[in-house]
Amino acid sequence: MAIAAKDILKAHIEKTAVLNEAEFDYVCSHFKPQSFKKGQAIITEGDLVDNEYFVISGCLKSFFINDDLKMFILQFAMSTWWVSDYNALYNRTKATVNLDCITDAEILCLSNSDREKLCKELHPIEHFFRWRTNKGYVAAQKRLLSFMNNNVKERYEELLKLYPELYNMVPKKLIAAYLGVSRETLSRL
Amino acid sequence: MAIAAKDILKAHIEKTAVLNEAEFDYVCSHFKPQSFKKGQAIITEGDLVDNEYFVISGCLKSFFINDDLKMFILQFAMSTWWVSDYNALYNRTKATVNLDCITDAEILCLSNSDREKLCKELHPIEHFFRWRTNKGYVAAQKRLLSFMNNNVKERYEELLKLYPELYNMVPKKLIAAYLGVSRETLSRL
Repeated sequence: MAIAAKDILKAHIEKTAVLNEAEFDYVCSHFKPQSFKKGQAIITEGDLVDNEYFVISGCLKSFFINDDLKMFILQFAMSTWWVSDYNALYNRTKATVNLDCITDAEILCLSNSDREKLCKELHPIEHFFRWRTNKGYVAAQKRLLSFMNNNVKERYEELLKLYPELYNMVPKKLIAAYLGVSRETLSRL
Repeated sequence: MAIAAKDILKAHIEKTAVLNEAEFDYVCSHFKPQSFKKGQAIITEGDLVDNEYFVISGCLKSFFINDDLKMFILQFAMSTWWVSDYNALYNRTKATVNLDCITDAEILCLSNSDREKLCKELHPIEHFFRWRTNKGYVAAQKRLLSFMNNNVKERYEELLKLYPELYNMVPKKLIAAYLGVSRETLSRL
């Protein structure tokens, strides 16, 4: 693993868990670095999903296509974000969402079995992953509430707060697909 | 704590974590039994939230009221479900959702600090709570996807699968508030 990637992962984990150098090196040895090109698919609907992904650089999107062929974006993922189809990953079912790259991306890949092994062997890593998911759960609840409330302007402001660098990074039509509005509605905001 | 409540909590935790009798008794000693009456409020918007709730019997709902005074139900919670305003609980902010009782209810209450203490002291409990939240995260993602897809019939079928006993337990207008549709639309399904 490149030094830069290792430093990013280390700083990220150390926000939640305390590990010594040897433990961190051991944790690191379970992450596989991967490079992806802009547009490349990582997970496609129907795939069996065995990995989750920690983004070092670049921007990914997880999305699904509804019955009317309309695209919805569930999540953008940039540096230090985690992403996968967690339903498929945890429940060993087939993917219902897609994951691909909006830009070229450097990623660290962790398998389901390696995460469970690390959590079992190292209590601080179990603590780290519990809080990682706690935060994801709260973000998903917030997103659901704002969908129910259906205030597009608020959703847009929340998005910019969540991903300040996004506006210059991805096409506007993808921002519209995250908000669940048309490109025209977005222009009016 | 009543024997019945203790048995329900034990069976629930043992699905995910292995504890010996002394450890389980120690865990139990941090849960406070509480009885609530039908209609009673447990969390009200604006409250500081310091507890999460494990339902022994009865049925709760977490909900919010939008700017147009329309009620949306985020979650029903019945026996063996966990519920709180997790955003407020984890981030030490004020509640944005409400929690009250659809029926009389028996609940076990666990404080934020006791959960963290137990997770630190007992690795299996940290494991249990990680998987508890993993499941909640996946459920929230699924709910979000079905909202985006906006297929009310599918949402209704998912609801009956998730809570088979619900249909006879709660007024139809609350089911409509969970689905985000009018009482009339629900009647047509």
